[in-house]
Amino acid sequence: MSAERPPFISFLTDFGLDGAAATCRGVMLGICPTARIVDVSHTVAKYAIPDGAMLLRAALPYMPVGVHVGVVDPGVGTTRRPIGIRTGRGDVLIGPDNGLLVPGAERLGGIADVRELANRELWLPVTSSTFHGRDIFAPVAAHLACADAGFDAIGPAIEPADLVALALPEAVTRDGGLETEVTYVDSFGNLRLAGDAHAVTSALGELPVGSRLAARVGDVELASVTFAPSFGHVAEGQTLLYVDSTGDLAMADNQGNLAARVGATRGASVRLERGD
Amino acid sequence: MSAERPPFISFLTDFGLDGAAATCRGVMLGICPTARIVDVSHTVAKYAIPDGAMLLRAALPYMPVGVHVGVVDPGVGTTRRPIGIRTGRGDVLIGPDNGLLVPGAERLGGIADVRELANRELWLPVTSSTFHGRDIFAPVAAHLACADAGFDAIGPAIEPADLVALALPEAVTRDGGLETEVTYVDSFGNLRLAGDAHAVTSALGELPVGSRLAARVGDVELASVTFAPSFGHVAEGQTLLYVDSTGDLAMADNQGNLAARVGATRGASVRLERGD
Amino acid sequence: MSAERPPFISFLTDFGLDGAAATCRGVMLGICPTARIVDVSHTVAKYAIPDGAMLLRAALPYMPVGVHVGVVDPGVGTTRRPIGIRTGRGDVLIGPDNGLLVPGAERLGGIADVRELANRELWLPVTSSTFHGRDIFAPVAAHLACADAGFDAIGPAIEPADLVALALPEAVTRDGGLETEVTYVDSFGNLRLAGDAHAVTSALGELPVGSRLAARVGDVELASVTFAPSFGHVAEGQTLLYVDSTGDLAMADNQGNLAARVGATRGASVRLERGD
Repeated sequence: MSAERPPFISFLTDFGLDGAAATCRGVMLGICPTARIVDVSHTVAKYAIPDGAMLLRAALPYMPVGVHVGVVDPGVGTTRRPIGIRTGRGDVLIGPDNGLLVPGAERLGGIADVRELANRELWLPVTSSTFHGRDIFAPVAAHLACADAGFDAIGPAIEPADLVALALPEAVTRDGGLETEVTYVDSFGNLRLAGDAHAVTSALGELPVGSRLAARVGDVELASVTFAPSFGHVAEGQTLLYVDSTGDLAMADNQGNLAARVGATRGASVRLERGD
Repeated sequence: MSAERPPFISFLTDFGLDGAAATCRGVMLGICPTARIVDVSHTVAKYAIPDGAMLLRAALPYMPVGVHVGVVDPGVGTTRRPIGIRTGRGDVLIGPDNGLLVPGAERLGGIADVRELANRELWLPVTSSTFHGRDIFAPVAAHLACADAGFDAIGPAIEPADLVALALPEAVTRDGGLETEVTYVDSFGNLRLAGDAHAVTSALGELPVGSRLAARVGDVELASVTFAPSFGHVAEGQTLLYVDSTGDLAMADNQGNLAARVGATRGASVRLERGD
Repeated sequence: MSAERPPFISFLTDFGLDGAAATCRGVMLGICPTARIVDVSHTVAKYAIPDGAMLLRAALPYMPVGVHVGVVDPGVGTTRRPIGIRTGRGDVLIGPDNGLLVPGAERLGGIADVRELANRELWLPVTSSTFHGRDIFAPVAAHLACADAGFDAIGPAIEPADLVALALPEAVTRDGGLETEVTYVDSFGNLRLAGDAHAVTSALGELPVGSRLAARVGDVELASVTFAPSFGHVAEGQTLLYVDSTGDLAMADNQGNLAARVGATRGASVRLERGD
């Protein structure tokens, strides 16, 4: 491992690919030229705070300790607060107080301290009402990354309990099955579900690899689902339930697009039972 | 702020996301390994020189001083000239002489000096007829960024007045309203318009926040448009006129896609009047 | 040229833009913080090993010598082997043994040495069955890039002849024409074809610029195709045959989308003849 460790910033938005996120990157590098910036995603569905939250929750534990900027912000320019969250691991998350940042922070050792971004000396000199990514979040993040400013300098403390929270779905055992929900549809059309391996074995008992399950996704019945460790363990086009790389349950068609086939989007209800 | 300031390159093309822009990045880093490269956008609509020009104009003022490469180049391999533009701020813009670079240069202190890229010692040794991004623009930019070559070394001077110009639309007061045009449709479906806050108040008089306006976009009448500082100041789905983060006028549906709803694309005519 | 040359990693996947590739980038920078990482593409068509192979073959020769990670991997979590290939130029390619890496390696001086990734000390401590990009390929690549580990340390040798191969199409002269195949459709809708300038002149004789050709793409007859060095040498909308920037034959509509117009996808048969 190298001795030098440059400042690190990760960056997620719903800005799309036409220059807005890049403009923020330019602001960051103007303030902190040595920062390494990783774009987590800029194609989060517009205004989809839960999607952004799920992506941060999956990605941030694998990022170096640093500053993580998340902007899915339908309330930009209103009274919603711009915040910084310091985590147990030593990271700082920067973005709007709308729930976006909380699940990711919880995966980084939990929320240690919260501040409202109120110190205008760390913002761009002129700020707009519609682009706080560029004018507030990016410059504050860059000042923190380059350690020009300490976390306490960004603004006054907020009680963690006062943060806007996201209501995340949970998996529940009912009538001998597991009732859960689609929490994210990835670009392969795989369905990430609320709950983990423990939830499914609590509901259905031990599941040896190859166990047959039945599932219902929304109104669509899937009679033949195999519990398997990875895609290639079932035939092409067959459906599997697996524990995905975040530790969550997930369902997929091997080399197919399950979400498109069954018309599932985030929030679709899912029921899992033992099959024949 | 850090003392070290690595060479900076920004990069915009219509190449898409399947490897061509990355190939240029590889060439740049082969010549100037310490450069920080920001991809402004590579999903500019194919051959859409005005779209690329608007994106550079919005993004470049927020980039560090450096070299900015823009390639939307339907004339590649013909007699159109490859050029470099030095700006008043000290940047260099590199790309084809087709109007793409001029609006951005004007936002960086104006055009100070122009050169035709003619010094083949700064190109790749073998050049193709279809990929000047890789073979000419990327290597020249990287040599300039790493200061292996000075601006004067890239080729002979061109009179700025001889550059190919873009005819940019303007806002005009007529019959008590403001007649303008869509200059860019962003990924949210927001419509950027020609003209600024001064243009609209010149035409319609002072507009307190919350003023009611009527608009026509192409053939579509919008009876209820609110002048507001940001999206969240109107109800979800309501239309607002605002001054966007570039200083231009813009219209949007709060948390909706106005462009899709009214079928508007770049060049659509827009008329704004006072409403009831 | 700068004296400092940071570790270099290029990265291609079919993961899409929603955070998985970024997660791998985070892992790489956690292990090798000074690496420069170029994303070749993450929008390769899902599971399309030949598309990924063509993109690596086109891009890698223009990348600095370094580590190149390619992951299009429908067999993740099964018995397909994770491998490293050392090339004649001194690069290392990292990815699954499914043919993806071979055409690119052949453009980098050929395959010098192959290893199976078996040294778990270079992997993440906990590995999943569905995300070897994050858990195996990214960390091994980063350890190699930062030279914490030598190539021989990644695992036992494999005979190059035992690698899974891709059957790449070839151009064949038949009945006075050239029979070839679409090997890649780029984001402009241009068709890359098997075979080079030599193949077409072998079949059709010398072709001065402006020569008229006839073509058939799948079932579609194109009566008027011009052999030209670049797009702007034919009128807008006209079809040209050219030698593209990789040295392969290609066909395009100037400022149009030929693939969409004729419905061509990878694998479509193409026949070229002299025209009137």
